[in-house]
Amino acid sequence: MAESIYSNYPPDLSPAQQKFLVTFVKDWAIQNGLAVRPSPAIIPSGADSNGVLATNAPVTLFPSPFPRACFEEATALQEIYNELYAMITCNEEWLGKIVEGLIEVDDFVSNLWKVHLDVQKEGYVQNLSLGLFRSDYMAHVLPTGATALKQVEFNTISSSFGGLSALVRQMHTELLASPPGSSINYPPHPLLQSRVPPENPAVETLSAGLAAAHKAYGVSKSTPALPLCVLFVVQETERNVFDQHALSRQLKTIHNIPVFRVASVDILDQTSIPSSNPSRPLLYQPPHSPDSTFEVTTVYLRAYYSPDEYKSSRDWLARTHLERSAAIKCPTVLNQLSGCKKVQQVLAEPTGPDHLSSFLKGKDNTLVERVRDTFAPQYDLSINSQGRELALNPDTALNHVLKPQREGGGNNVYKADIPGFLRSIPESDWRGWVLMELINPAANAQNVALRNDGEVLRGDVISELGVYGTILWENTGKVLHNEQGGYLLRTKGKEVNEGGVAAGFSSLDSALLF
Amino acid sequence: MAESIYSNYPPDLSPAQQKFLVTFVKDWAIQNGLAVRPSPAIIPSGADSNGVLATNAPVTLFPSPFPRACFEEATALQEIYNELYAMITCNEEWLGKIVEGLIEVDDFVSNLWKVHLDVQKEGYVQNLSLGLFRSDYMAHVLPTGATALKQVEFNTISSSFGGLSALVRQMHTELLASPPGSSINYPPHPLLQSRVPPENPAVETLSAGLAAAHKAYGVSKSTPALPLCVLFVVQETERNVFDQHALSRQLKTIHNIPVFRVASVDILDQTSIPSSNPSRPLLYQPPHSPDSTFEVTTVYLRAYYSPDEYKSSRDWLARTHLERSAAIKCPTVLNQLSGCKKVQQVLAEPTGPDHLSSFLKGKDNTLVERVRDTFAPQYDLSINSQGRELALNPDTALNHVLKPQREGGGNNVYKADIPGFLRSIPESDWRGWVLMELINPAANAQNVALRNDGEVLRGDVISELGVYGTILWENTGKVLHNEQGGYLLRTKGKEVNEGGVAAGFSSLDSALLF
Ligand SMILES: [Mg+2]
Ligand SMILES: [Mg+2]
Repeated sequence: MAESIYSNYPPDLSPAQQKFLVTFVKDWAIQNGLAVRPSPAIIPSGADSNGVLATNAPVTLFPSPFPRACFEEATALQEIYNELYAMITCNEEWLGKIVEGLIEVDDFVSNLWKVHLDVQKEGYVQNLSLGLFRSDYMAHVLPTGATALKQVEFNTISSSFGGLSALVRQMHTELLASPPGSSINYPPHPLLQSRVPPENPAVETLSAGLAAAHKAYGVSKSTPALPLCVLFVVQETERNVFDQHALSRQLKTIHNIPVFRVASVDILDQTSIPSSNPSRPLLYQPPHSPDSTFEVTTVYLRAYYSPDEYKSSRDWLARTHLERSAAIKCPTVLNQLSGCKKVQQVLAEPTGPDHLSSFLKGKDNTLVERVRDTFAPQYDLSINSQGRELALNPDTALNHVLKPQREGGGNNVYKADIPGFLRSIPESDWRGWVLMELINPAANAQNVALRNDGEVLRGDVISELGVYGTILWENTGKVLHNEQGGYLLRTKGKEVNEGGVAAGFSSLDSALLF
Repeated sequence: MAESIYSNYPPDLSPAQQKFLVTFVKDWAIQNGLAVRPSPAIIPSGADSNGVLATNAPVTLFPSPFPRACFEEATALQEIYNELYAMITCNEEWLGKIVEGLIEVDDFVSNLWKVHLDVQKEGYVQNLSLGLFRSDYMAHVLPTGATALKQVEFNTISSSFGGLSALVRQMHTELLASPPGSSINYPPHPLLQSRVPPENPAVETLSAGLAAAHKAYGVSKSTPALPLCVLFVVQETERNVFDQHALSRQLKTIHNIPVFRVASVDILDQTSIPSSNPSRPLLYQPPHSPDSTFEVTTVYLRAYYSPDEYKSSRDWLARTHLERSAAIKCPTVLNQLSGCKKVQQVLAEPTGPDHLSSFLKGKDNTLVERVRDTFAPQYDLSINSQGRELALNPDTALNHVLKPQREGGGNNVYKADIPGFLRSIPESDWRGWVLMELINPAANAQNVALRNDGEVLRGDVISELGVYGTILWENTGKVLHNEQGGYLLRTKGKEVNEGGVAAGFSSLDSALLF
């Protein structure tokens, strides 16, 4: 089924058809904020010193076919996945054991854990946590030709592209459904007939999560009471700003909540915790209005997810400063750590204790097994383990990917590179890595991408589905808000192993369900 | 009153305040399509060969104060102004006399007139005309300190910036009214307290005009009937595309009308009039869907307004081709010619026949006089005329501007330059020019502009108010649709004499009424 649906898709484009689609997409993207700041690669150095230029986000010209059953299963499982990672985060002892196994080999995990221990020693003053998650999957083609949903990773920090992917869905829908009465934007093709991508309420869902936390924070902990706000903590050199602005616009205009943005390097200058107040409210002083002070209900991290963001001890101080405050963190350090690949691998272990069932006790057993069915086989690399054997054997390595604990791609080692890579690092570091069986995507999927420099690429592609969910919980395990909604379809050229859309390797897409 | 309101406006900005506003505006502009394609001046040649980059339209950081009485008078007079120019266009004999006086000195007017004569000879097949007008004014400060509304020009073709100026109004409103409960985006200032610019329904008004024409066209004149569409005729190298897309998006999504864009150079390739059909429907074949044919109900010209757009006889052929078709033209050649500065000057003549009253006969006399009150003193340069005397005398020249028949700025001669300029051209060409007394704007108005290269300029400014109106009429004089709605406030640095926003000389603004 899957193979045949892809065999003649997308239809060929004449030069005039391609020109029309490219012009439409380039203009639509800027008109609607489906944009990114351009990378230095496409702006000569010295030009645009004021940083005014923008370009379209990399997008596919066509929506990609995606199996309906996989899409529906992924959305059906998002709320239980939200709860699973909330419960893992609540179990500091269990998570601590996993983290302690990584401390010697992974400085980043080790430093994050230290932040947690420092704050724990002083005592946390906020018992609520907010998760804005994205669970990433592929449609795995079985030898029978049927497809099964397999999880690639679960993102617990800075889950991005909700804002832009909702726009791509809107753009593809307009292309499919216009002009009214005679849609001729695409060449005729059965898949493009009277079919549009499913609605994508990613912005609504993610913003509603932030709004729920803002409300749950309650009244100001300051005397006299201060006005409350949500704080987006961002990277100083972020180029994916319009994705973030889609959420802040929704928070401001629909939820009526003040939102400010602070670069992570400015956290210690622009926020403070009054030492005289044992509730430790996080106060924000906007540099453009130095007489105003806001109390931060919710810190939304679109930064601090990657080791290279922590350049000095000052950055770790800033992270600790946020963690010890009364603001609700999205995410906490513990919740960030729950996204380690090692957690995924331990959950997937076919033998030993059934951690998954423990975390989801009380849930319908069928539902728990449906979660388990999304796990791809994955292994640690301990001595005499099956994982070590599969990784070092050049034949079996070809069917695997080696992942560090980091989220977000860019650090994985693939296939034939695995044995050599492992031999190039100390054996003592191997436990920092997880070996995962490669997921087998449809062999003949194709699409046409418009890069953010305007180049058009046609070729074999792999699509990855991310489903968004938000959850707000108490550290006792009580859940206050749990929602699923919105998706990201990210489509990359098959020769490209990594999936960083912002870097231009892959494209934002939307799904035509079949 | 006017002088004092401007004296301490806008408030000073600290570096942090300016940085905040500039960052807000740069990002808001791209997120919401308040954008232009960058000029070659800010993109090094060779870079961006695919034309993907965009930048913010030039905008003011603050809305500009504008006298409420002038704003309200301008909007109150728009519908009668619409009708005045419709009636002038209907009176081919009267207009022809003015045009014939220009034919020897103005090739462009002469060639436009020829298009009309050619089509008249064959016979027009469409008796409806559509106007999307913009009447441009300044608030003229009288010696008493009071202000009076004075017209700068009346635009009958390609009246632009309706799409972008509605966005500027939205942006300034967000800056003024957020964050909810404690607006701190601007430094405190009485003018910025609980006041927002008037609503700006320019997109709704202009699109409703196009939609009214589309509907009034009626059924297809082809056998078998063809699907109907609106055609935007644009310049091949247009950079102000997002202003135009704001209208086409409204037409497509709200009015459900198919809209296509054709570069003026492609008109003869992509449209045709079947010689076998005496109704002369204009047929459009989208190059991206060569098997489809649409019948054009309405041709909306965002091209063909400037002589340099007619590079060869082929361009005149294309214009004639559109004119002789059954499509409703926005505007017709005659309606374009009614925008000649000479028409404005003849209407304003204080002696001789009262053309204004004739064109507006049946209208309330007070209303007609209010229209007349918006005319600034203006003169022809005929032998022994007052105009010639005022233009050649270096002292009186200082108080005047010399205008050719062209719309849109960029061709005017100012003040001390006038006598020398006139002496540099043959005296026989003088009748191609109109001398107009300069309008006296508030002396001490200031603002801060963000250019589209990101440079920030603070200084003395002059604001010009444009009010949009649409009218659909039969050449018998019967009016089918007449509406006013939306405005452009264009603010330029005082040292700059011309007002081309697209060229970056001036900025889009919105009005704070006082
Ligand atoms: Mg991922
Ligand atoms: Mg003008």
